[in-house]
Amino acid sequence: MIEIPKKSKAVVITAYNKPYEITEFPVPDVEPNAILVKVEMAGVCGTDVYQWQGKLGLRPQLPVIPGHEAIGRIVKIGEGRTADSAGAPLSVGDRIMWSHVACGKCFSCAINNQPTLCEKRFSYGLSYSGAYPHLTGGFAEYEYVTPQTDVIRISGELSNEEVIGVCCAFRTAVAAFERLGGLGIQSNVVIQGSGPVGLYSTLLSVEGGAGQTVVIGAPKLRLDLAKKWGAKNVINIEEMPDPAERKKAVLELTDGRGPDVVVEASGFTAAFREGLDIIRRGGRYLIIGQSSMEAEQSIIPGMIMLKHLEIIGNASGTIRHFYKAIQFIKNKRDRYSFADIVTNKYRLDQVNEAVQAMMSGKEIKPVVVP
Amino acid sequence: MIEIPKKSKAVVITAYNKPYEITEFPVPDVEPNAILVKVEMAGVCGTDVYQWQGKLGLRPQLPVIPGHEAIGRIVKIGEGRTADSAGAPLSVGDRIMWSHVACGKCFSCAINNQPTLCEKRFSYGLSYSGAYPHLTGGFAEYEYVTPQTDVIRISGELSNEEVIGVCCAFRTAVAAFERLGGLGIQSNVVIQGSGPVGLYSTLLSVEGGAGQTVVIGAPKLRLDLAKKWGAKNVINIEEMPDPAERKKAVLELTDGRGPDVVVEASGFTAAFREGLDIIRRGGRYLIIGQSSMEAEQSIIPGMIMLKHLEIIGNASGTIRHFYKAIQFIKNKRDRYSFADIVTNKYRLDQVNEAVQAMMSGKEIKPVVVP
Amino acid sequence: MIEIPKKSKAVVITAYNKPYEITEFPVPDVEPNAILVKVEMAGVCGTDVYQWQGKLGLRPQLPVIPGHEAIGRIVKIGEGRTADSAGAPLSVGDRIMWSHVACGKCFSCAINNQPTLCEKRFSYGLSYSGAYPHLTGGFAEYEYVTPQTDVIRISGELSNEEVIGVCCAFRTAVAAFERLGGLGIQSNVVIQGSGPVGLYSTLLSVEGGAGQTVVIGAPKLRLDLAKKWGAKNVINIEEMPDPAERKKAVLELTDGRGPDVVVEASGFTAAFREGLDIIRRGGRYLIIGQSSMEAEQSIIPGMIMLKHLEIIGNASGTIRHFYKAIQFIKNKRDRYSFADIVTNKYRLDQVNEAVQAMMSGKEIKPVVVP
Amino acid sequence: MIEIPKKSKAVVITAYNKPYEITEFPVPDVEPNAILVKVEMAGVCGTDVYQWQGKLGLRPQLPVIPGHEAIGRIVKIGEGRTADSAGAPLSVGDRIMWSHVACGKCFSCAINNQPTLCEKRFSYGLSYSGAYPHLTGGFAEYEYVTPQTDVIRISGELSNEEVIGVCCAFRTAVAAFERLGGLGIQSNVVIQGSGPVGLYSTLLSVEGGAGQTVVIGAPKLRLDLAKKWGAKNVINIEEMPDPAERKKAVLELTDGRGPDVVVEASGFTAAFREGLDIIRRGGRYLIIGQSSMEAEQSIIPGMIMLKHLEIIGNASGTIRHFYKAIQFIKNKRDRYSFADIVTNKYRLDQVNEAVQAMMSGKEIKPVVVP
Repeated sequence: MIEIPKKSKAVVITAYNKPYEITEFPVPDVEPNAILVKVEMAGVCGTDVYQWQGKLGLRPQLPVIPGHEAIGRIVKIGEGRTADSAGAPLSVGDRIMWSHVACGKCFSCAINNQPTLCEKRFSYGLSYSGAYPHLTGGFAEYEYVTPQTDVIRISGELSNEEVIGVCCAFRTAVAAFERLGGLGIQSNVVIQGSGPVGLYSTLLSVEGGAGQTVVIGAPKLRLDLAKKWGAKNVINIEEMPDPAERKKAVLELTDGRGPDVVVEASGFTAAFREGLDIIRRGGRYLIIGQSSMEAEQSIIPGMIMLKHLEIIGNASGTIRHFYKAIQFIKNKRDRYSFADIVTNKYRLDQVNEAVQAMMSGKEIKPVVVP
Repeated sequence: MIEIPKKSKAVVITAYNKPYEITEFPVPDVEPNAILVKVEMAGVCGTDVYQWQGKLGLRPQLPVIPGHEAIGRIVKIGEGRTADSAGAPLSVGDRIMWSHVACGKCFSCAINNQPTLCEKRFSYGLSYSGAYPHLTGGFAEYEYVTPQTDVIRISGELSNEEVIGVCCAFRTAVAAFERLGGLGIQSNVVIQGSGPVGLYSTLLSVEGGAGQTVVIGAPKLRLDLAKKWGAKNVINIEEMPDPAERKKAVLELTDGRGPDVVVEASGFTAAFREGLDIIRRGGRYLIIGQSSMEAEQSIIPGMIMLKHLEIIGNASGTIRHFYKAIQFIKNKRDRYSFADIVTNKYRLDQVNEAVQAMMSGKEIKPVVVP
Repeated sequence: MIEIPKKSKAVVITAYNKPYEITEFPVPDVEPNAILVKVEMAGVCGTDVYQWQGKLGLRPQLPVIPGHEAIGRIVKIGEGRTADSAGAPLSVGDRIMWSHVACGKCFSCAINNQPTLCEKRFSYGLSYSGAYPHLTGGFAEYEYVTPQTDVIRISGELSNEEVIGVCCAFRTAVAAFERLGGLGIQSNVVIQGSGPVGLYSTLLSVEGGAGQTVVIGAPKLRLDLAKKWGAKNVINIEEMPDPAERKKAVLELTDGRGPDVVVEASGFTAAFREGLDIIRRGGRYLIIGQSSMEAEQSIIPGMIMLKHLEIIGNASGTIRHFYKAIQFIKNKRDRYSFADIVTNKYRLDQVNEAVQAMMSGKEIKPVVVP
Repeated sequence: MIEIPKKSKAVVITAYNKPYEITEFPVPDVEPNAILVKVEMAGVCGTDVYQWQGKLGLRPQLPVIPGHEAIGRIVKIGEGRTADSAGAPLSVGDRIMWSHVACGKCFSCAINNQPTLCEKRFSYGLSYSGAYPHLTGGFAEYEYVTPQTDVIRISGELSNEEVIGVCCAFRTAVAAFERLGGLGIQSNVVIQGSGPVGLYSTLLSVEGGAGQTVVIGAPKLRLDLAKKWGAKNVINIEEMPDPAERKKAVLELTDGRGPDVVVEASGFTAAFREGLDIIRRGGRYLIIGQSSMEAEQSIIPGMIMLKHLEIIGNASGTIRHFYKAIQFIKNKRDRYSFADIVTNKYRLDQVNEAVQAMMSGKEIKPVVVP
């Protein structure tokens, strides 16, 4: 029997643009079907930076315990929850990860079958922590997984470092590639961006039947991992800051016609303009990195029609994409060093540093180990 | 035996932004598989205006005989051409229409199976007429259909007025809707634009399984035809010039969620921004009207991702789309007054007037009857 | 305040192949999110015949209250249930219909996103009624809608007769056509079968952009409705019992090439062989009527490859398909007489007659009005 | 300047089921756009066995020069043919391969965009050789590539052994997988059959994003190559002749649910029944191996509906599939030993032996080197 404390330390946002604080919250009772976990690792994401700056569209009442990418070990499991979403049995001591919660009952969920657009979505790390069950963020000792939450058990052979990226970037990339519906056999693919979303997109491209995969990004640290993970060529935007020069380089790498598929995973609005320009006529463009509802960008809409393009936006993913990402890692871990995504580990009391490191772009994925 | 003159009158562009002239060209010999037709009717298109202004990307050596939408009656048929592309037998006296010519051999045609992107496309009405076979435009007494050209025979019960729109706007809309791959059962659709492309899109929406079809456009003349052709509601941009007000109106007509599918057929770059704004989260956006490779528009790229959109551009169509458009007319002519698209007829020597009328937007489709 | 009795009369199966009996069950307490309805109408389906004969794969412990197609008027509504699955507010006095219940948590639901294949599906009219909440079948005075059940409110202008078919045949056809992904513009469609599934498929074809829709079936009563609902031609298998002759007739109606799309909605295994034979090379085949896991049929598998076919099977549907079917009726009721599907009404004590009538094939859809 | 003889030796079929003979044909004049090649290698295919036995649907007038999979070196090139279908320049001395010829003008080609179903398809190795240009089969010293034929140049670094399979099995598998539209991320795939089509399907599965790829086939020689080419597991039907046992084995390898995708590439009609049985509910089934229009098989059609399956048949491929197969080899030749498909080489005068070897199933792909 695992001893569960009455209180759990947790990082909180009490005001935007102020240092995170550490405080204590009561450890909640576990309802039927709910799960209490001890957090083993929580990833730091670009979104954490925006959240901290108060720039996210989603701005709940404070305080909020941040951290939406977490792996936890089950310390208590509510009655009725006996298996994960893929049917694997669950018990105390198992490691799990879990998705944000779609209600299953709104128009987006029930009628449009688009649960990532759920009108009542509950998001871990992005919700008010001032009331029961409080512990809904990953930068904490304990986290509470609600009865409605879909979870995936992590099998023993996989390390936390290998799978932490599944909690956000990898499952998003999986969902996006699923929505694309197949790259086309031996398509040439350009990935814009070399952060976690860009890197997992690289893997999905390389192992999804692409011919050439080219990654445009920076800094070298990330591009080196892109190459290790199968990118045939990389273009360092620090070394090649001129989009016209990059276009020339891309054309040279794609038989002069431009890539069949472009994946926008950089987060820069200007990248969208560049993508429309480099993609071949008749190509497809997957948009995963554009997360601002405010940033404007001038483009030439005629390109979409005259180049006969298809553009697909994807936001987030569901438990099925977690599952597939985990399967990917299981099936390919003899070929790829998945743990390389984690470039640094921080304690709870170092979260301010961790988020600063993320902001600086010098790390790939820093993680918090409470 | 039909008597064929040695010379054919034809409208020509000899300089941009100058009045069209009428001149005579030699009637060419008919090669094997080629066809010589007497033009019965030639449609005037928005593209003709751009061409006349010298604003098209495609700017061949002058002189050019304009007119890319024509119906002709066969006066001579080259050896070897015995049937149309759907297998209907062809002989002198039959009426036909025909598509631009894809080479079938370039990378776009042979490898990408995207013949409207053919690198060596031959376009009627948009090609140099100074050399054999000269008569490659529809604003002329006779027109020459090359050996490689795909043609469709028009069966006797269909009037020229009913089918003239197939030559450009209707086949384009058919190709675009085919690329969309089905509207979804009882989807709500908003069509931006009420010119010929918008009107045929309205028909394809209404008869393609849409729930509500709403058309945004002007002037009233066109919107009246949209309603006659099945649009449940129309929004007149002359009466409602404020995009915010239009958005409100669209939301009211679509259960507060916005349309499942938007079709951009207006040609205004600002319409693209408006479309991104009104479409429901998770919706699809078909771009048929954006034909400028120069016009810029500021948008919010994040909308594509965060609203989880799919955007599909389509340019032009092939003979299969002509065939399907003709089938549509055959199968639905007891329900719709297809001939209403033709609002005026002009003689060859009135082409300047016809194109002015098109430019003014007061007509839907003026036609030239040589 | 509506008065709710302590007991509800209900039809039960106590042994297969024996007459249905009428007995009384306690009216259950209403849990949070559950709903108690007074049944207004319950459709009789081909499945009821199989169930009565004990031929269904699903054979729960007896007694079972049959009836899986019901419309009920809310008499009591559990706490927390305030809206239907499309967001319409729910209150006592509203009419509703509801789907079978997918668990949302099994591999089929959560990972494969195929809820009609739910491993723990709860099916109304096909479940054990010997324990709480007992009233899970439609051939009863009252029926209990469980907390997990997705429901759709029926708006006031729609009669029960118009929408009763949505509960089973229509939502199945909608789900199947959705899975097909669009008929293709002006495709020629052959529907095999003229029962409710065939008739709703006819509507979906006619209003989904088909060119010609041909229905093969019997008896004349049903084929007459098929024509009233838009079928261009019908083939009566009683008058044309020879498949070779029917093939000839179909080819004549489809330009000699065969239909682009065939929909199997007849339930006869031999129809599958016939469908493979009549479909054009390169065509698509939708299978909705083959509901036996035992009936064998000899076919030529090579046809699937050499004719380059696509075959899509679909079983059942979810609440989204109910919603779309209802939207279809709302949007098209000025054109089609949806209520014509109901050919007869029976009281609870006439269910034996009603099911016999269904078995005989002389009715289209008999209904029970308790 | 390459010297071209007046006569070319060629293998011919003069009567079915009789030994092939060797005879001489005149080397034809080369028309504009045509190409004369010296055959470097010609593959022996399962179809050659059926052709020799007179069992093919296609039974042209005899004599026929067999051999539909050939690589030739250009010895003469007709005026106007300057590049291959992907735009690579062509000249005397280059090695090429080429596809069967679709007319581009029939209903299948022009209207349905399904050129492998061309009503006037010209097939190399399967056409009458008694008249000009005679040399239309690969089992000959020289072969004539007609003006309408699409060709692909083979770049210098690729050996004939590496690419010979592209001419038939590989391009067919590419076309089939393209039609499937993506395997789905980390899907489990079962390939039925371990001949060339099965082996290339294995590669397309392994490199197309599959999770587990399981090959069912025989003999060991072929299964060993399947494993070398990435199959995680193989099931030898010689060691496990009972379908029920194989089903059990497949279920064990696919988490008890059965494969997400099954590819039928065995050619046995009974394999279709087995595939329907082992595939998971909701799965997809690709049919590439069923090439008889006569062989009957009893199945349970209800499985297609109740298991909610999608079945896709594919016959042959076009030049785009040749191109993609070649790209696959170029991009993956550092990982796979493509040349291993060729298990033996025969001279022209050994063709009887080569076809016997193919029939016996002991070889994977024997080739003829004239």
